[in-house]
Amino acid sequence: MQRMSFDEIQQELTRILLAVGFDKSRAERCAHIFTENTCDGVASHGLNRFPSFVGDVCEGIVDPDSDPQVVRVLGAIEQWDGKRGPGPLNAEKMMERATELSREYGLGCVGLRNTNHWMRGGTYGLQAANAGCIGICWTNTTALMPPWGSADKKIGNNPMVICVPRQEGPVLLDMAMSQFSNGKLEVLRRRGEQLPLPGGYDRNGELTTDPNAILESFRALPIGYWKGSGLALLLDLVGSLLADGDSTREISRREKETGVSQVFMAIDIVSRMGADNVDGKVDAVIADLLEAPPAEGGSRVRYPGQGMLATRRENLEKGIPVEPELWKAIRAMEI
Amino acid sequence: MQRMSFDEIQQELTRILLAVGFDKSRAERCAHIFTENTCDGVASHGLNRFPSFVGDVCEGIVDPDSDPQVVRVLGAIEQWDGKRGPGPLNAEKMMERATELSREYGLGCVGLRNTNHWMRGGTYGLQAANAGCIGICWTNTTALMPPWGSADKKIGNNPMVICVPRQEGPVLLDMAMSQFSNGKLEVLRRRGEQLPLPGGYDRNGELTTDPNAILESFRALPIGYWKGSGLALLLDLVGSLLADGDSTREISRREKETGVSQVFMAIDIVSRMGADNVDGKVDAVIADLLEAPPAEGGSRVRYPGQGMLATRRENLEKGIPVEPELWKAIRAMEI
Repeated sequence: MQRMSFDEIQQELTRILLAVGFDKSRAERCAHIFTENTCDGVASHGLNRFPSFVGDVCEGIVDPDSDPQVVRVLGAIEQWDGKRGPGPLNAEKMMERATELSREYGLGCVGLRNTNHWMRGGTYGLQAANAGCIGICWTNTTALMPPWGSADKKIGNNPMVICVPRQEGPVLLDMAMSQFSNGKLEVLRRRGEQLPLPGGYDRNGELTTDPNAILESFRALPIGYWKGSGLALLLDLVGSLLADGDSTREISRREKETGVSQVFMAIDIVSRMGADNVDGKVDAVIADLLEAPPAEGGSRVRYPGQGMLATRRENLEKGIPVEPELWKAIRAMEI
Repeated sequence: MQRMSFDEIQQELTRILLAVGFDKSRAERCAHIFTENTCDGVASHGLNRFPSFVGDVCEGIVDPDSDPQVVRVLGAIEQWDGKRGPGPLNAEKMMERATELSREYGLGCVGLRNTNHWMRGGTYGLQAANAGCIGICWTNTTALMPPWGSADKKIGNNPMVICVPRQEGPVLLDMAMSQFSNGKLEVLRRRGEQLPLPGGYDRNGELTTDPNAILESFRALPIGYWKGSGLALLLDLVGSLLADGDSTREISRREKETGVSQVFMAIDIVSRMGADNVDGKVDAVIADLLEAPPAEGGSRVRYPGQGMLATRRENLEKGIPVEPELWKAIRAMEI
């Protein structure tokens, strides 16, 4: 791994996005999101995914110029059409809109249809928290898992984000409904390693820790078995209703994932309850959690987002780790 | 099991609630909720729990006369004080209020503090769906599970409900953050049976399917390991912030669980999107799901709430199954 500065990465990604048709401010903003995801230790939704994002732009799946348009106003809820624009830019704009609505109503909610992969959902949770709001958002996806009781892929892994603002650093839950992501399975397969816990079924219907067996069977395990399967279904239902958009069923008919439905909620908590009040409550819960002694001589208990914040600080100081081969490939992208 | 009519059960429960200080309409309403939970196949939060609910009233933990009071209005969000009233009546009133707010704002949200156990969360999701709304609600609880990485109970199992209206019958997800409830573990222990999948750790820190080992270690497993642990924490944080109420940390200091925080959200979907539109979308997703072939020769895939609806229909027709010993004990309650 080489370590590179945030600016250097962002500038290179901006150059490529400009070349594929983004205007300057949108290229910079989009490059910022990819760079920040990498800086935060989520390269799977940052640099690692950048080449395929650019590929989607070149193929016309992602329209670099499209900006979301409001379709229907239902009070504190609005429905927007993402017009197949860049997922990260669409999502950022919609969380901004939800935040604006929350200033007026206490709570704002946007349903966004016809958009593209938002990369890391946590980006938009952090955005809400930076604006003093509790951020809640989720997306549906193409079918990636079987529902509980079947071996046929039917449900999305539908990542869900809940982020609570806190001066010392937000609490950020960013989780998909599958126990392990395909990215994680692929990394472990390459290394020849096993999962720490069963992550799916093999072709014989046995629970397994072998990443290769799960990638072959397409039978990733939903979190909590039937519970995560049910939650994925409900997120898809509520999301496609709020967005008046496509469900996983319809998205899965397309050759490549596009036209997904997303929900963005912001709750205007800090300005209405007071920063000290919010911090007092959140800090007390976190302090109590961190006091829990480690089991079986393991490492200390962490709160969701704690590791990410530490990674961000380290990478901003020392530089962001980048795989040299990946960087070479990105540098070589001739559009 | 004997089978009894809905009315017979409700009348007997009403009699007892009147005797412990409920006024007539509140006794009937509360008895209705306990009876309906039993009718829907959730006796664990219906008849089975009725004697301890009455015990809580007699001990002064639940005040039969208390009605929630509004504390703060933040637009589409309101904060209410449950004044330690009966959990089911408080929750029902708050989902009603969230529904009213949703008529005005599209989305309504109530944070309720200082309330008591709501029994079955699904009750209030179904209530919202019956009013043509998407219902989302959750509660925190006393500490019931260790966070991921520790063996010390610190987090609640914080049940969460999402319910989507549908003319053929709502889709209802009602799930706690523990893989199996203590009630389920106790039932299996009594029968000398094992869990179908690992449900917690034994005293040696090994994953186990033995209900007795989990009840002894107090180490129930969160759904999806670290993911359910994180989600439980975030539900507690957001819930106690929205309600301006106690978190699991504070609730756990009390000898018995009381003064919990709850959130009720209603989204006015049917009147704003049209019943046919909502039904069309939901029915299509459900039909697609039910087409998934069963794996390993198991039973058919089901959607969340499907089994409950079937149970309700059967029990309304044939009578509600009641354990004779339990009924005898309830009949004998001399207050």
